Amino acid sequence: MADNGAPAAGKLWGGRFTGGLDPIMTQYNESIYFDRAFYSQDIRGSIAYARANQKNKILTEHEFAEIERGLKLVLKEWQDGKFIIQPGVDEDIHTANERRLGEIIGKEIAGKLHTGRSRNDQVATDMRLWLRDQLDQLEEYLVDFLKVISSRAEKEIEYVMPGYTHLQRAQPIRWSHWMLMYGSFFASDLQRLREVKKRVNQCPLGCGALAGNPFNIDRDAIAKELGFDGLIMNSMAGVADRDFVVETMQWGSMLMMHMSRWAEDLIIYSSGEFSFIKLADAYSTGSSLMPQKKNPDSLELLRGKSGRAFGHMAGLMMSIKGIPSTYNKDLQESVEPLLDHVKTVGDSLQIATGVLSTLAVESESMVKSLTPDMLATDLADYLVRKGVPFRETHHTSGQVVALAEKEKLPMDKLSFAQLQGVDKRFEKDVMGVFDYQKSVEMRSAKGGTSKSAVMEQIAAVKKALAGQ
Amino acid sequence: MADNGAPAAGKLWGGRFTGGLDPIMTQYNESIYFDRAFYSQDIRGSIAYARANQKNKILTEHEFAEIERGLKLVLKEWQDGKFIIQPGVDEDIHTANERRLGEIIGKEIAGKLHTGRSRNDQVATDMRLWLRDQLDQLEEYLVDFLKVISSRAEKEIEYVMPGYTHLQRAQPIRWSHWMLMYGSFFASDLQRLREVKKRVNQCPLGCGALAGNPFNIDRDAIAKELGFDGLIMNSMAGVADRDFVVETMQWGSMLMMHMSRWAEDLIIYSSGEFSFIKLADAYSTGSSLMPQKKNPDSLELLRGKSGRAFGHMAGLMMSIKGIPSTYNKDLQESVEPLLDHVKTVGDSLQIATGVLSTLAVESESMVKSLTPDMLATDLADYLVRKGVPFRETHHTSGQVVALAEKEKLPMDKLSFAQLQGVDKRFEKDVMGVFDYQKSVEMRSAKGGTSKSAVMEQIAAVKKALAGQ
Amino acid sequence: MADNGAPAAGKLWGGRFTGGLDPIMTQYNESIYFDRAFYSQDIRGSIAYARANQKNKILTEHEFAEIERGLKLVLKEWQDGKFIIQPGVDEDIHTANERRLGEIIGKEIAGKLHTGRSRNDQVATDMRLWLRDQLDQLEEYLVDFLKVISSRAEKEIEYVMPGYTHLQRAQPIRWSHWMLMYGSFFASDLQRLREVKKRVNQCPLGCGALAGNPFNIDRDAIAKELGFDGLIMNSMAGVADRDFVVETMQWGSMLMMHMSRWAEDLIIYSSGEFSFIKLADAYSTGSSLMPQKKNPDSLELLRGKSGRAFGHMAGLMMSIKGIPSTYNKDLQESVEPLLDHVKTVGDSLQIATGVLSTLAVESESMVKSLTPDMLATDLADYLVRKGVPFRETHHTSGQVVALAEKEKLPMDKLSFAQLQGVDKRFEKDVMGVFDYQKSVEMRSAKGGTSKSAVMEQIAAVKKALAGQ
Amino acid sequence: MADNGAPAAGKLWGGRFTGGLDPIMTQYNESIYFDRAFYSQDIRGSIAYARANQKNKILTEHEFAEIERGLKLVLKEWQDGKFIIQPGVDEDIHTANERRLGEIIGKEIAGKLHTGRSRNDQVATDMRLWLRDQLDQLEEYLVDFLKVISSRAEKEIEYVMPGYTHLQRAQPIRWSHWMLMYGSFFASDLQRLREVKKRVNQCPLGCGALAGNPFNIDRDAIAKELGFDGLIMNSMAGVADRDFVVETMQWGSMLMMHMSRWAEDLIIYSSGEFSFIKLADAYSTGSSLMPQKKNPDSLELLRGKSGRAFGHMAGLMMSIKGIPSTYNKDLQESVEPLLDHVKTVGDSLQIATGVLSTLAVESESMVKSLTPDMLATDLADYLVRKGVPFRETHHTSGQVVALAEKEKLPMDKLSFAQLQGVDKRFEKDVMGVFDYQKSVEMRSAKGGTSKSAVMEQIAAVKKALAGQ
Repeated sequence: MADNGAPAAGKLWGGRFTGGLDPIMTQYNESIYFDRAFYSQDIRGSIAYARANQKNKILTEHEFAEIERGLKLVLKEWQDGKFIIQPGVDEDIHTANERRLGEIIGKEIAGKLHTGRSRNDQVATDMRLWLRDQLDQLEEYLVDFLKVISSRAEKEIEYVMPGYTHLQRAQPIRWSHWMLMYGSFFASDLQRLREVKKRVNQCPLGCGALAGNPFNIDRDAIAKELGFDGLIMNSMAGVADRDFVVETMQWGSMLMMHMSRWAEDLIIYSSGEFSFIKLADAYSTGSSLMPQKKNPDSLELLRGKSGRAFGHMAGLMMSIKGIPSTYNKDLQESVEPLLDHVKTVGDSLQIATGVLSTLAVESESMVKSLTPDMLATDLADYLVRKGVPFRETHHTSGQVVALAEKEKLPMDKLSFAQLQGVDKRFEKDVMGVFDYQKSVEMRSAKGGTSKSAVMEQIAAVKKALAGQ
Repeated sequence: MADNGAPAAGKLWGGRFTGGLDPIMTQYNESIYFDRAFYSQDIRGSIAYARANQKNKILTEHEFAEIERGLKLVLKEWQDGKFIIQPGVDEDIHTANERRLGEIIGKEIAGKLHTGRSRNDQVATDMRLWLRDQLDQLEEYLVDFLKVISSRAEKEIEYVMPGYTHLQRAQPIRWSHWMLMYGSFFASDLQRLREVKKRVNQCPLGCGALAGNPFNIDRDAIAKELGFDGLIMNSMAGVADRDFVVETMQWGSMLMMHMSRWAEDLIIYSSGEFSFIKLADAYSTGSSLMPQKKNPDSLELLRGKSGRAFGHMAGLMMSIKGIPSTYNKDLQESVEPLLDHVKTVGDSLQIATGVLSTLAVESESMVKSLTPDMLATDLADYLVRKGVPFRETHHTSGQVVALAEKEKLPMDKLSFAQLQGVDKRFEKDVMGVFDYQKSVEMRSAKGGTSKSAVMEQIAAVKKALAGQ
Repeated sequence: MADNGAPAAGKLWGGRFTGGLDPIMTQYNESIYFDRAFYSQDIRGSIAYARANQKNKILTEHEFAEIERGLKLVLKEWQDGKFIIQPGVDEDIHTANERRLGEIIGKEIAGKLHTGRSRNDQVATDMRLWLRDQLDQLEEYLVDFLKVISSRAEKEIEYVMPGYTHLQRAQPIRWSHWMLMYGSFFASDLQRLREVKKRVNQCPLGCGALAGNPFNIDRDAIAKELGFDGLIMNSMAGVADRDFVVETMQWGSMLMMHMSRWAEDLIIYSSGEFSFIKLADAYSTGSSLMPQKKNPDSLELLRGKSGRAFGHMAGLMMSIKGIPSTYNKDLQESVEPLLDHVKTVGDSLQIATGVLSTLAVESESMVKSLTPDMLATDLADYLVRKGVPFRETHHTSGQVVALAEKEKLPMDKLSFAQLQGVDKRFEKDVMGVFDYQKSVEMRSAKGGTSKSAVMEQIAAVKKALAGQ
Repeated sequence: MADNGAPAAGKLWGGRFTGGLDPIMTQYNESIYFDRAFYSQDIRGSIAYARANQKNKILTEHEFAEIERGLKLVLKEWQDGKFIIQPGVDEDIHTANERRLGEIIGKEIAGKLHTGRSRNDQVATDMRLWLRDQLDQLEEYLVDFLKVISSRAEKEIEYVMPGYTHLQRAQPIRWSHWMLMYGSFFASDLQRLREVKKRVNQCPLGCGALAGNPFNIDRDAIAKELGFDGLIMNSMAGVADRDFVVETMQWGSMLMMHMSRWAEDLIIYSSGEFSFIKLADAYSTGSSLMPQKKNPDSLELLRGKSGRAFGHMAGLMMSIKGIPSTYNKDLQESVEPLLDHVKTVGDSLQIATGVLSTLAVESESMVKSLTPDMLATDLADYLVRKGVPFRETHHTSGQVVALAEKEKLPMDKLSFAQLQGVDKRFEKDVMGVFDYQKSVEMRSAKGGTSKSAVMEQIAAVKKALAGQ
């Protein structure tokens, strides 16, 4: 099936091949159209590598200077959008950069760059450098989002709304309390991110194809120049390891899982039946058929992309799970998912920040949705304070709920006589229970809904931002 | 965070919006850069839809003629690579095509095209039409692959090799038998594909946004014109359903799972230690560091991409699982994974076909890897034929294996006396057991390794191709 | 780490081993505590296998009669709960049954049962027989569920409720139409189930360990006796294949994905803010803290178990994807997930049937939730019927919506003058648009919300039940 | 479908229900048969909670003393296997323990235990306490495994074997180097485990159903008594959060992914064609059909269970992704997967430790598998040291490989003249290149294969064990 022309002259491994390449295979195999994302990291890594080889006497000072000069020119071409990829020749970013370097400074010197190095350690280095920078960026986005959460929670602490379990009205809470639940989740994501970054930022350069470097290269110097926190200490691990990608995706999938729950809440809250919030037009779209529609597309995309982020992780774990040790070409399948995953998470954080910072709270609808039966626990607690065992008060309060249902009255409209009909221990002060503000203030233990407890949570989020 | 300019004039849903769009949101929301893949299906669907609306008197004959003429011009622009997407305006393929149609034939008539239709039923139609054609293509690739399997199995039926369980040498088999195992798996994939196609090829057009069409449109006529096999019979299902995508990906993931096992076998068989096969240069690559290397990159990519194909499926199932009924924007996340999934499967089938049709079998290495202990079962069966219970013969044969190990001799080099030392019931003819050809021919029950049984399997694969 | 006593005497493979077993390894390896589920299938398969071996002259008539008699006694022990598993000896159901058979009829004859067979083809046979019966059972449950859907849809066809897209009120629909959307999904599940069953019900017995049967056993006769639809035609495929498990789980995961969406809808509909339905007490639970709570636990479990069902599928696909061909012990990991998956799907179908057949519809709440802006499309369509291009009517209707919002009036409370202020083409009859019943009846094209269209859907579901 | 008897009397939420329960629903809903695993944690948590409520004056000293006494008796019943679960009444461990407590100390006092608490915060507390202890245990297993790796690496540092990339022989390495690659992976797992543990060990008790505790309970005191590292600072997060389960499973899936690659390597190395290692009998099993077989079942199970561990994670992520905030019953689906996941990882670590500590290295086979072409890079490096650019030397060495192939000679059997025929710059000392020991010693940069570099890696693993 293949039209087997001779392999293109510049293929790095072309030395001994006599056959040709299936054109579909060329495209199936090449990575240049996505790993070009790493062009600057590839060049940075090569300069550091060459510098170390100069100290090693593999390169003369002149040779190194030429390589550095040439690579900087190549970098500039990329930055200026002038680098021309040679289809079928530049199969990956490493090949492309070295090919171009050779054209600029001559093959004699350029041909020394790769001494003792393999694309196996090179690509791992490129990916880690790139990802480290991306994770720095994601950290900024995440911090921004948390800042919106905490400042909005501070500002809107007075709004009371129904809290739900099982999507059934449960107890009154503060709107800020709801936001800070997610503050708690996303602060954990931040903590995890900082841990993941440490492991991403380990240097594999100098691991060679699998067995290490035979010219006693100073790996510590390379790592230092490139800003790595340390070395991968086993050369086979250095080239076999895509855990840093998996770990990033596990992190990102967890974050997006939180994002999905957050979006789900807000989608429900923005339904006509709830009407607790109103998205800014910027984050809504309309319908091509129904003129009245204002749809929370931004939130639905956040929710939907959570699956996508997970899919990348699941797919890559399956790929890696199924291979033996060291480098196998299967690992190339880590690159595209990573690029998309990181973009998905980054975009999503920005969208979520935009959504939250622009949505309008319909606090009157929130209040309208509060119902006296949400204070049934407070009613039980009232009796607890009179010394009745909770199990009994729970039962008693349940009877009051049933009575109200039977009488088709809200609980707080039952007469004192009716309450006493259920339990003699209800006293006049019982009517004071039916107060939503009082209810939220009552829950003042740490983590609760009282104003002071909520302020404490805001402080905790701020502490998390500072990495404390 | 958004720079809130007014929304671009042409947005379909622009009527009542007063705010602007976050530029990141625009990009997060728009699908034109991937759903443009459906440009021709979108146009075909619109023509069929307009024709039905003409019969319905929603459109005059003239209006329909104009719409048809205009859409064909739009189609031509796409085909000629001349269609110019208006960034920020053409958010999806439907909007783009209708926008352009309006420019060509005027908005007065073009504005009637979408009557009674929603992008919800439109996109479902586009995707199904597109996917149906793709599945036809994939079927061809799969049939090609199966043909290579069966013809190669027929041609190379004489090669005997070790069969493995647990990656331990087990019993001699034919190389063709190995190929036909995968023939069996891929033939099942073919059967499933044909079933999936039937369900993909159902028409959702006329379902509207969710509640159906209020102009009594003739959905059967539309379906017939578009070559659908039938109708989605509930309008809410019509717009909610991405099962056809999930099902396709479940199918594709299963196929790729087979591909991965197939590739894994061949990777092991092409290792230096096994040396059973040699990939064509076209499907191998070398190393940038190690001059002697010839790596089975094609097979490793097949194996790695199996994870990718699964990841798309897993991600989409997660997305769909987490939403309520009808159309939610989350469903947009079905498109990109589908495009990549279908391409991955299609490329992989072609690569696999190329690999199999060009690899060289090293039949001498296969024979060299056969060892007499692989006939231990035949030795046990020998005694079974003399009336000894199998459990006993299994034990006896195990003792012969142990003896050979102890004597550091291959089993067939033990003397007759030594065999009799283990069990008196061994007779002179026992030495005839140690014959690999005889062993494979012995397994002549259906599905076995004998030549006739293998030929029967080849016939079965051919029957499967014919859909019988 | 192991306390290496001698291996228990009865291990099938004990012949040549001299070392012992780590007790954790024993437990890690053994499957008897879950594959005992297949006890009757294992015995049925053995009887059929022995009968075929009698025809083959491997067994005498007497030997076969003894084996059959013995196996039936073993079966009875299982059925009566009297079979005593010997820990550490009966590592799997095959070993256990054969061990017990030997005790009953003597080892001389029992030792002949396994002639030419391997546990590889035996376990595949057991699993397929078991699964086939389970799928029959699941089909019954699914049919029952579909019957409740269609009969309830028929009975409650008059109820009109809001239809949603993006969880925003979109257009009025019938409650039956909502039910039938899921009818459509579950009917597809039924169709798929019937296809899967065909592939599950293929006979692997006679495939041996991997290379087939050397005694020319009549596999067709075995398959016929066991009620299989056909043979696995390649012996290596026969033992390597767990596709029938994967396919079942893909099917089950898709069904549970539908179940999750169905449950999600109903959870939202049973929230206080929607109040469209009320679950029967039998399918709700209360709160240990909050006396007023009535939680839709049944629905949440349905939704949650959807993830579980998927997890089994994802995990097994990963396991199988990562192995080479034929039998590898990894395949043992298919059994427990399958058992749990099938139980999960079966229980869930029964629960869903119970939920749907006992929930109360709060049709007044449904009506209360309908709002005139849901008729904005009807308003646009009104102008369409006067010849105005839809794009324009969509815009006009949007202006009416905006006006109503600005005036804080429901759309149908705008005066005729106000409507005319937006567009002169509104005539007196426009007020007739604001009628929900009329709106649903208007959508009478196939698949729509009109009574006739809904009745047609009910007929379609009934046809699907009959397999047409 | 339900046989609706009255609900069992002891149900915690029984107060207001009038209907009955479907028996299948009872079983679908109840968790006692798996959450009984937490019996001791549930009791420990209740004692700490009651103590805090005594300080709060909710309980008198006497009441607390009675509760503590009673709970310790309940604990003893569990420990002695004497606790009798009441089917249909004890739906979960919390209900069961409180029911039994009431029987022992009377309902009057026992009925006060649950004051201000919900099963929502209770179950989260139980799970975290249980998991924390389990993770301690897993850490021990993992440390043991790493110790075997490092001590075996130290002891067997002299063994040289082929290193592979793409499963093709690449360069000679030390067997210890191979082990330490996995040492590197598993040491990262250890680091991650310690991070996960910190987040698991946070206290949710006192969060109530969702809104916190209304009796100003001292959550810090509870956390301290229970050995938690800190508090969940938002009550809604406290009950909504199963991230600690997901994170554990992400960790476990990554570890099992490493285990799978490790097992895959060893399975290949124990094949007849490689024969690098021989498993102890304790970790192998035989075949019921083939007497000569010795299968690496332990390794295959490790590999297979890797999918299972992943499946639990994937399933739970899907379940959680699809729910809104706070407690939803879906979260119950986190328990069984967690139990199985933790057991799977723990067993697997022990099995792996057993396998590695008992396997025999066939160092002669390793050496036999080394081939001179694996030194092609060394040959290229030889010329590099003479100042030839690497790209040129790579090409030259490739020509030598091709020549050897053409001459059907091992590379080291080419004559000096033949080498010079390829490149004049080869000098007499070139023959010294063909020395595997020299080759591994040459790679002495950090992370390489030289003895000193390997010893450095062993030190690194030991440092990791100490948490440095």
